[in-house]
Amino acid sequence: MEKVLDYLKQNQQRFLAEFCDYLRFASVSAQPAHKNDLHACAAWLVAHCQAIGLEAKLCATAGHPIVIAKTPRAKNSQQPHYMVYGHYDVQPPEPLELWKSPPFEPRIVGNTIYARGSMDNKGQHLAHLKAVEAYLKTGTALPCDLTFVIEGEEEIGSESLSGFLKKNRRELNCQAVVISDTGMPSPKHPALGYSLRGIMALEITLHGPARDLHSGGFGGAVDNPAMAMSQLLAQLRDQHGRITIPGFYDGVAPLTAYERKEYARLPGTDAGLKKMIGVKNLFGERGFSSSEQRSARPTFEINGLTSGYQGEGSKTIIPSWARAKITCRLVPNQKPEAVRKAVVAHLKRICPPTMRLEIAAGHGAEAYFVPPTGPQAQAALRALEKAFGRKPILMREGGSIPIVNQFKKILGADSLLLGLGLPDDNAHSPNEKFSLECFEKGQRMAAFLWQELSR
Amino acid sequence: MEKVLDYLKQNQQRFLAEFCDYLRFASVSAQPAHKNDLHACAAWLVAHCQAIGLEAKLCATAGHPIVIAKTPRAKNSQQPHYMVYGHYDVQPPEPLELWKSPPFEPRIVGNTIYARGSMDNKGQHLAHLKAVEAYLKTGTALPCDLTFVIEGEEEIGSESLSGFLKKNRRELNCQAVVISDTGMPSPKHPALGYSLRGIMALEITLHGPARDLHSGGFGGAVDNPAMAMSQLLAQLRDQHGRITIPGFYDGVAPLTAYERKEYARLPGTDAGLKKMIGVKNLFGERGFSSSEQRSARPTFEINGLTSGYQGEGSKTIIPSWARAKITCRLVPNQKPEAVRKAVVAHLKRICPPTMRLEIAAGHGAEAYFVPPTGPQAQAALRALEKAFGRKPILMREGGSIPIVNQFKKILGADSLLLGLGLPDDNAHSPNEKFSLECFEKGQRMAAFLWQELSR
Repeated sequence: MEKVLDYLKQNQQRFLAEFCDYLRFASVSAQPAHKNDLHACAAWLVAHCQAIGLEAKLCATAGHPIVIAKTPRAKNSQQPHYMVYGHYDVQPPEPLELWKSPPFEPRIVGNTIYARGSMDNKGQHLAHLKAVEAYLKTGTALPCDLTFVIEGEEEIGSESLSGFLKKNRRELNCQAVVISDTGMPSPKHPALGYSLRGIMALEITLHGPARDLHSGGFGGAVDNPAMAMSQLLAQLRDQHGRITIPGFYDGVAPLTAYERKEYARLPGTDAGLKKMIGVKNLFGERGFSSSEQRSARPTFEINGLTSGYQGEGSKTIIPSWARAKITCRLVPNQKPEAVRKAVVAHLKRICPPTMRLEIAAGHGAEAYFVPPTGPQAQAALRALEKAFGRKPILMREGGSIPIVNQFKKILGADSLLLGLGLPDDNAHSPNEKFSLECFEKGQRMAAFLWQELSR
Repeated sequence: MEKVLDYLKQNQQRFLAEFCDYLRFASVSAQPAHKNDLHACAAWLVAHCQAIGLEAKLCATAGHPIVIAKTPRAKNSQQPHYMVYGHYDVQPPEPLELWKSPPFEPRIVGNTIYARGSMDNKGQHLAHLKAVEAYLKTGTALPCDLTFVIEGEEEIGSESLSGFLKKNRRELNCQAVVISDTGMPSPKHPALGYSLRGIMALEITLHGPARDLHSGGFGGAVDNPAMAMSQLLAQLRDQHGRITIPGFYDGVAPLTAYERKEYARLPGTDAGLKKMIGVKNLFGERGFSSSEQRSARPTFEINGLTSGYQGEGSKTIIPSWARAKITCRLVPNQKPEAVRKAVVAHLKRICPPTMRLEIAAGHGAEAYFVPPTGPQAQAALRALEKAFGRKPILMREGGSIPIVNQFKKILGADSLLLGLGLPDDNAHSPNEKFSLECFEKGQRMAAFLWQELSR
């Protein structure tokens, strides 16, 4: 292991240059204009995997390609086999004007790198690749076989990956999936995640008049879609932060006393959270701490709202339509399709007679939950402690990695969530960043992990 | 008069070509990028006025220039003096994708011309210019002196014009102001308007987190500005269409029995209105007919709503802010600043403690009302009947021409509202159009008007 750790230490400068190359691809999966950028990014990744000694290939899908990279293995290898999952696609960078430097031109300030995709997720799986590179380049035997599966559709629902897993079930059969795509409370608090929230997306459009109308000529006799949308959405959450859609909370299991105790051990205060995100006051469902609200409770979130005139100055119209982009975060035991059905039925029930309601279904995924007491989780905790020099904590994650459910269903494998992001890394926001300390310690954690898992 | 009417008849083709030239200027006053287009448009108008025999000049202002054009007059003329008011600026053309042909490339289909500004207002004041051209080019004596005042800031609140009127009060002193910038129910129902609604504009922004947040990592513990905005706006109108802001209706005079009788004489049905604007159902304040709601009652209208991600696909964020563009239409006896104060005070009262409320004041103008029984109104009714061959009707206008109040205050002159637009002309909407029948009959009406007013 000394050789491996030395190799990592001596090559950080080069790793960083390669990281920057990787970040320069505008691999925005949600925007069709970036299709070629995604392809170019995937091709770069294949070449990089090959250069470090992996057997890598690009696998075409109906959407963006999947990159597969394997460690060289003995014929009929009896070693355990683990998968490392990541994604090379990134969130849209908008609003661009809020970035302090262009999102696809990486900028290093002190021990931090700024770029879209730096934390979510390029930097995190690159740390795993670098750990394997250290094994391969120093001739150190890996105690297990590894397959990297790095997809290009995570931010839009991983639609192609399920089919790919099914088709390659035998080849991808593994003991566990390792995923670094979440976070830890601070570099002093390395963490193992044991739960993820699910998601259910939809887009609501209210259609009023056939075209924008002059608000002088018609205003007063015609309902305004922006007002109708406001009144529709306003009814969906009460003053105590509870979603009022009948059936929305169906199946939600209460937090156990053990979990609430673990939550109470998390570092950080509400005052610190308030300051970090810059809000006047926090707001959430009554009866839960902010940490619990952020990861153990379902949400109904408006991600975007559009109606009428968006430009400078004023335009005296009654808009023809109003649209809301919605995602709900789900918790264990909620079914995305059941929640969608409850939301749609309620919207239909309360839609005013002046509006035509159009609902477009988006992606959906169940929440994930695995008790953190098994031997793999214990091995992961040891690797974290060795790399970070601190006792790791157990935590639920508020985000969603929908594909985790498919790993379980299709491959029968649990996932180990070894997140390297920090809470203020601005994932999905302008000025996304990644700590270079987390990048380096993440490489060490990944190097220890294969030893611990194979013990 | 025969010569004048003949001249108009014989020159329609050329008038139409000139009309198209005028429409090609993208004179969008609300958008700073179009500043040069406004200047070019005004310069074209000055040259055109000079070509038809008027003494015309461009008057610089702090905003967009004002065009002044006078009929040649005798020294110490004792003739009555009238002003014709119009505006060469137009509403923003967005959303562009809904136009069947480009907004600034006029398209003639049958007896209709399509272009931004065709009805509001270039076609309407051009009809007046053409009537005067007919007098001047046929050597027919005008029984009065005329001054055209055509401004470039009507769609953004006519800010420069008030000062201009004050500075040129003596020169612009007149018996009445003639304005064709409104509508008639149909070419069979020429109309004289005797009231306009006022306006009060503002922009509301709710600021939540300092930046867009990942809805997985933070969702549940932070209020969503789009939801907060929805809940704020939703409270402002009840289910019966009544605005719930305390003080909003202060001073609103009830409709007289005479006026309600006149309203009942208006042509058109609710079914026809519904079909024309393409709504499932009409909606308005209980206790008033749709015509009354559209012109005699105040409104609170959301003209635009913006928050979070507006692009394709989904983006799982809690937006940092949400914004609503608002205009209220006001009726006689409502004071714009009092209404603004009432709205702002109410918004401050109900803004949730999670949000920072920012309010930007827009333009404001009182409603206008003049009893239609005086000799000028009677003269206008005669001119309408001669040109259209139908008995004209009296009506209140739902739109606003804020400067009308300044004509009264500064020049002491009432305004005659001789609108030539039709209800389905799509003013302020995509595919704005103007009827060439209204254009031609409007020229005849304008030609008769000066005879009738000077009788």
